[in-house]
Amino acid sequence: MSASLKTRLSDYSAVAARMGVDAVALVPGPNFTRAVQHLFMSNERPFLLVIPADGPAAALVPNLELRSWELVGFDGAVFDWRDQDGYDAAFAGLMDHLGIASLGVEGQVMRVFIHHAFLKARPDLRIVDAEREISALRMIKTPDDIAALQAAIDISERALARTLDSVRLGQTEKEIEQVLIQALFAEGAEDQSFPPIVAAGDGSARPHAKARADYAVKAGDALLLDFGARKHGFAADITRTVFLDHVSDEGAAVYDTVLRANLAGFDITRAGVTAHQIDDHVIGVLEASPYADRIRTKTGHGLGRDVHEAPYIMRGNHMVLPAGTVYTNEPGLYEIDNFGVRIEDDVLITEGGCTSLTSFPKEMTVLRC
Amino acid sequence: MSASLKTRLSDYSAVAARMGVDAVALVPGPNFTRAVQHLFMSNERPFLLVIPADGPAAALVPNLELRSWELVGFDGAVFDWRDQDGYDAAFAGLMDHLGIASLGVEGQVMRVFIHHAFLKARPDLRIVDAEREISALRMIKTPDDIAALQAAIDISERALARTLDSVRLGQTEKEIEQVLIQALFAEGAEDQSFPPIVAAGDGSARPHAKARADYAVKAGDALLLDFGARKHGFAADITRTVFLDHVSDEGAAVYDTVLRANLAGFDITRAGVTAHQIDDHVIGVLEASPYADRIRTKTGHGLGRDVHEAPYIMRGNHMVLPAGTVYTNEPGLYEIDNFGVRIEDDVLITEGGCTSLTSFPKEMTVLRC
Repeated sequence: MSASLKTRLSDYSAVAARMGVDAVALVPGPNFTRAVQHLFMSNERPFLLVIPADGPAAALVPNLELRSWELVGFDGAVFDWRDQDGYDAAFAGLMDHLGIASLGVEGQVMRVFIHHAFLKARPDLRIVDAEREISALRMIKTPDDIAALQAAIDISERALARTLDSVRLGQTEKEIEQVLIQALFAEGAEDQSFPPIVAAGDGSARPHAKARADYAVKAGDALLLDFGARKHGFAADITRTVFLDHVSDEGAAVYDTVLRANLAGFDITRAGVTAHQIDDHVIGVLEASPYADRIRTKTGHGLGRDVHEAPYIMRGNHMVLPAGTVYTNEPGLYEIDNFGVRIEDDVLITEGGCTSLTSFPKEMTVLRC
Repeated sequence: MSASLKTRLSDYSAVAARMGVDAVALVPGPNFTRAVQHLFMSNERPFLLVIPADGPAAALVPNLELRSWELVGFDGAVFDWRDQDGYDAAFAGLMDHLGIASLGVEGQVMRVFIHHAFLKARPDLRIVDAEREISALRMIKTPDDIAALQAAIDISERALARTLDSVRLGQTEKEIEQVLIQALFAEGAEDQSFPPIVAAGDGSARPHAKARADYAVKAGDALLLDFGARKHGFAADITRTVFLDHVSDEGAAVYDTVLRANLAGFDITRAGVTAHQIDDHVIGVLEASPYADRIRTKTGHGLGRDVHEAPYIMRGNHMVLPAGTVYTNEPGLYEIDNFGVRIEDDVLITEGGCTSLTSFPKEMTVLRC
């Protein structure tokens, strides 16, 4: 087993020890990928890496993944199982081998059927949600992580520029979305971070709107694009809102308010700030404006292998943020049935302050289209 | 509430009644989408639809999704929650409202943090895995479902044709993968069904191989492409294996064996057959060949909104398959460190037999590239 794999696994042993559980279990997803540095997909087949507080880790691997698993260079015990036999015996073997009485799991990733399979193998197993503690290991980005994120963001920005260049009045949201998606892949995306939001007019007021095939963009619309490329396993997440042809006084004033909130986030961010402090500062700008009743979201979320991960930038989260954290600074104002504005940057926290990994212009833009 | 929404919800009431639980819970994913006919993404925010065996359904909705939720036309009770407040009160309100003591959940979809949130609100709640029964409602495809699947498959086949036309010796697997992905979106895909497998040479022997940036395809390689477009919410899943420049006698014999197994699947499929019978017939062809030691997978899986769904076409699954079921017929033979062959079609079961929704040629192909 390589020294680096050993070190990464020991991080999870330490989590188990800190939480007072006998072991931590990882299933395919961002933590699993961080641990083994190979990508395995989550599907209907149980696939587990269990790392005890003390002693060597063990894995439960679908037989047809064994060959790919070998590339990981893992030298602990492996319990494999075949579709035709089912996985109960593998769980029983794993639990006998480990002899654990309590287990920390990723509550946001592990699905209930795995939970049930553990309890079937060992009915008195105490299963604890260790999502926060496990995912916290991904919060401080390594230089390689940052380079991957930057690559994903650069691809996203080039795709956005191409898309905005091509927008014409009368296109549907769906048509603009298709241009954006194709541009992402043409610029080198491995995948999309999430299905993009391309929303104009009243659609822009719905934070998770879906592009409509029956809405043609028109002069005066706000056009909101929230999307991202995935590269080297890391996910960009960017939002820009532009106005088409012209902008109303209200539109300009709302945009200015959101931009000031976004900039306030940069002002306050440095290593040692809490998530609460950032959100309080950013949302405070919105609350002090005439548009306080249009606030519907917190400032943002951590960003990395997962498009939504710790830290969640919200009031009440008093987590102290260290250098190397990346989060989305994405204030917005949304008036139902009218329009919404969101500006979202990906921010790297440094000792002395912060850097925006996003560099796409965010001055108010009126597209002549 | 529309009559069709009411009917779909009553399907889940019937599942709860059949299973002897007080209600069934759905979280964003394929069953949720089938139920409400609108797409909501699974993320870190609990979002639930709970349908009792008797009485009206209720929902737990993140506040920022309320506006999108209105489009569903649901007229039951809604418990919303905001990020800053957390969701415990919403779960408590929902459970008080419903007054249920047992709950069937989607074990393959619901994550452990939701399970824990239910138990926090009602520690004596009995949670049962109802994955099979809930997902079974998606097994028989409607005419609209089939049209959507066919559209996804047609896009996939056009993208495959473009990709194979462009393959040249010396390209890396990764380069070929990028061509395939761009072709999928250019042909109209909404998304990919899953990250594609583009694997040549020894990579083709790994069922879930990842395209390598450092492997250049060479004369004599088997090149396996397993991928699919998503359209109107439905996922295609197709595999073809071709040989580059020339094929060895062994390669040709293995290909012929896999093709005969695939054709055997079509021969036996009609409404009323069991999943076991299909797999036994298909794998039987492989077992009777000189390559029986290269068998590593079952015949296939159901296909629809989910790329892997019921029915799983494997020995031991004695589920009787009705007309309207769609499954993947994807036998393969894999010799580690040498090469693998898989041929995968998407098959619609009819009363009198079956139809292949896939029409891409599957005679052995040697690409002159």
